[in-house]
Amino acid sequence: MEITKENISEWLKGLQDNICSALEAADGGAKFIEENWTREEGGGGRSRVIKNGDVLEKGGVMYSAVSGKTPEFLFKEKEHAANVDAGSTFYATGVSIVLHPQNPMVPIIHMNIRYFEMSNGVKWLGGGIDLTPHYVNPEDAKYFHAELKKICDKHCEGYYSKFKKWADDYFFIQHRNETRGIGGIFFDRLNSDNEMSFEKNLAFWKDVGSAFASIYTELIKRNKTKTFTESNKQWQLLRRGRYVEFNLVYDKGTKFGLESNGRIESILVSLPLLASWEYNFKTQAGSEEERTLSLLKKGVNWV
Amino acid sequence: MEITKENISEWLKGLQDNICSALEAADGGAKFIEENWTREEGGGGRSRVIKNGDVLEKGGVMYSAVSGKTPEFLFKEKEHAANVDAGSTFYATGVSIVLHPQNPMVPIIHMNIRYFEMSNGVKWLGGGIDLTPHYVNPEDAKYFHAELKKICDKHCEGYYSKFKKWADDYFFIQHRNETRGIGGIFFDRLNSDNEMSFEKNLAFWKDVGSAFASIYTELIKRNKTKTFTESNKQWQLLRRGRYVEFNLVYDKGTKFGLESNGRIESILVSLPLLASWEYNFKTQAGSEEERTLSLLKKGVNWV
Repeated sequence: MEITKENISEWLKGLQDNICSALEAADGGAKFIEENWTREEGGGGRSRVIKNGDVLEKGGVMYSAVSGKTPEFLFKEKEHAANVDAGSTFYATGVSIVLHPQNPMVPIIHMNIRYFEMSNGVKWLGGGIDLTPHYVNPEDAKYFHAELKKICDKHCEGYYSKFKKWADDYFFIQHRNETRGIGGIFFDRLNSDNEMSFEKNLAFWKDVGSAFASIYTELIKRNKTKTFTESNKQWQLLRRGRYVEFNLVYDKGTKFGLESNGRIESILVSLPLLASWEYNFKTQAGSEEERTLSLLKKGVNWV
Repeated sequence: MEITKENISEWLKGLQDNICSALEAADGGAKFIEENWTREEGGGGRSRVIKNGDVLEKGGVMYSAVSGKTPEFLFKEKEHAANVDAGSTFYATGVSIVLHPQNPMVPIIHMNIRYFEMSNGVKWLGGGIDLTPHYVNPEDAKYFHAELKKICDKHCEGYYSKFKKWADDYFFIQHRNETRGIGGIFFDRLNSDNEMSFEKNLAFWKDVGSAFASIYTELIKRNKTKTFTESNKQWQLLRRGRYVEFNLVYDKGTKFGLESNGRIESILVSLPLLASWEYNFKTQAGSEEERTLSLLKKGVNWV
């Protein structure tokens, strides 16, 4: 099929459908509620939100395709400014997912894939998947990274180590000196300047999106029936507090959305139903919580 | 008494003592826990945190006095750059307060007063008090603003309207197009360039700090025994979510603290024990929640 923005958007809508079906089946208790919205400056989106499920407490699988005048912030990015024309228009389309589970033994997950093009012909692909377990389970972490490595290796040998490092650096809460979770892969501005042609990068990018449902439903299956205590639940709320800190202080997508008058409810659907902050909370020596914290750092090689 | 940084810091520590005593008496159930901390680059602080009180769910009354090389961000502020010497050192001391009550009918309050000086002799005062009711009660809002106006008017006729507007502009959640609460007063860089001498501005500044305890304990007394429902409690959690959004996205003190390697636990003590985010939450037509939202805007004249 010809690569056009329309075809990419259609593919993304199909992906959103498939992911929502898979998640509803895995949840068993709740269905996604759909809302269509339009953006004054051009385009719109199809938001799908789930809440109070058996597995998922709150989450969104959001599709959007927006267009208009190329946003100013792009001109400010030195390394890419040469590719941006002041008078150009843009088209951006993507699927973004954040899922907050009920059970603290099930990890939070985030996925985003996005396509961007300008009227001057410049275009690129971006995306990533990262996992934020409330309790880091090494078996799950290995499985998760092995799956991501498999996708990367299928397309380009260097991608996993490059994009894994990118995720470590990106999903980092500087003021806490800890990573948001166990990372994953993150990439941006993929096009024919990179290791492969645009077509080959697009195939990689599609595989990332297509792998999401099976990876996360597997992690749900492994963990959803695990028992937990009140104190596990309290820890989950504190870890969600960190998630909020990352999203509001560092996440570029969130920042851009808030500054560019994006659809606030779609952007902030990533925030959990409940989160907690305790002053100067300390984990107990030798506890599972302490072990998890010790693994929230850059450069852990899970595969 | 001579105006020296040491004397100002001593006065602030006394203020912290007085405020903590008054709040403990008003709470009746919990005491502040004190921690002293030092900062590698110079100075330190005395943090006082209360939790699980009868009235106060979580709050901090934080004193600090830090010093070192003048931070870089000051050189970037055009209008003040002329007063900042690259080789200079600074001394900053202040008291910061955020209190999150248990009962949704009691408002959240914030107060900060700070003094800053550099080795080149430049110095200024800053501060503010603002109120964030979960439910805006016009009587309380009038009382609150009238008290602030009284303090301002005692010292300088123009201060209330100037600093009230500053608070409206500062405590504003741009992406929600709503104010954090009903505002109050906010001021910064007060010195002899302003309406009055430094000495007179210092007297005003001290009166702001000294008024805090009586204003908030009055608001506690008025509201702490009011009954509330589960749905009032849920609304409180959502309003706290907005408080988190303001503090992490916009608050300059928080931003500066996070970027300058400040003491994270002191900075983020402003975040509530529990907060909530619901996707696309809508208030009911004619409800108290809707009425509150209608009052969260700039330029409401309460007195």
